[in-house]
Amino acid sequence: MNADYINPFLLSTVDVFQQMLGLELVREAPFIRKEFASQYEVTGMIGMTGKTTGTVAVSLPCEMALAITEKLLGERPPEVNAQVVDAIGEVTNMIAGAAKARLEHLQLSLGLPTVILGCSTRIAFPSRATPISIPFRSSLGPLVIEVGILA
Amino acid sequence: MNADYINPFLLSTVDVFQQMLGLELVREAPFIRKEFASQYEVTGMIGMTGKTTGTVAVSLPCEMALAITEKLLGERPPEVNAQVVDAIGEVTNMIAGAAKARLEHLQLSLGLPTVILGCSTRIAFPSRATPISIPFRSSLGPLVIEVGILA
Repeated sequence: MNADYINPFLLSTVDVFQQMLGLELVREAPFIRKEFASQYEVTGMIGMTGKTTGTVAVSLPCEMALAITEKLLGERPPEVNAQVVDAIGEVTNMIAGAAKARLEHLQLSLGLPTVILGCSTRIAFPSRATPISIPFRSSLGPLVIEVGILA
Repeated sequence: MNADYINPFLLSTVDVFQQMLGLELVREAPFIRKEFASQYEVTGMIGMTGKTTGTVAVSLPCEMALAITEKLLGERPPEVNAQVVDAIGEVTNMIAGAAKARLEHLQLSLGLPTVILGCSTRIAFPSRATPISIPFRSSLGPLVIEVGILA
């Protein structure tokens, strides 16, 4: 994967969390995830098509997914429910949308966000699009975004 | 979701399994999945963008994912590995590609297939795109496809 694609997603994630959620993210070192390593319990995913195709995933612990939903809706859901799914899907959509604006030359269109729930769930990308993982920490907890784009 | 979108995915699934894998699928009654019900252990997903956006998911048990990979590669992988991920991703891609041809007026582009692995994993669609599930059975085992498209 072309490393030029990473920075737009990194900057967009920081911007979305700061502007929409008032949350400062601290970036840690990007890494290439070992095959089939687990993510956190809640993962928003969205596909992108255009001059290339790719997927961005935003993975975070349940507690942080609940805290983000509370920030967006003003009320904390009692558990991971449809409101949380919509909130995390929307955050994923906003990150992909902000990255799309930074990657204008790729003329990306965004798909429908979906949200994967489960402990020890693993999300595998095709071998031709190894994703790069960018971990962040914040006062509400950690998260990691993963970006896999055809080279 | 518009029910007219279901038939192209149903027919495409039957065709892909018959033509690519020599496997006859028997369709069972489509249903609207209860919020957050579990899928099988291996689920291929692909996003679609165009005049609408949507996602198709193909979910099947590990054993069937291994059998399909064996049919495609001529050799059975020892476990669910990168070969299985690529094979199930490719089957998902073929189903979406065949449905895209049947839905020409929507001018769909396909994203990158990803594969979700895990027991008790749940895949949630946004509340504005409730998916329809279509279960099938075959001599190799069951599978279910889910299609969520913005109405």
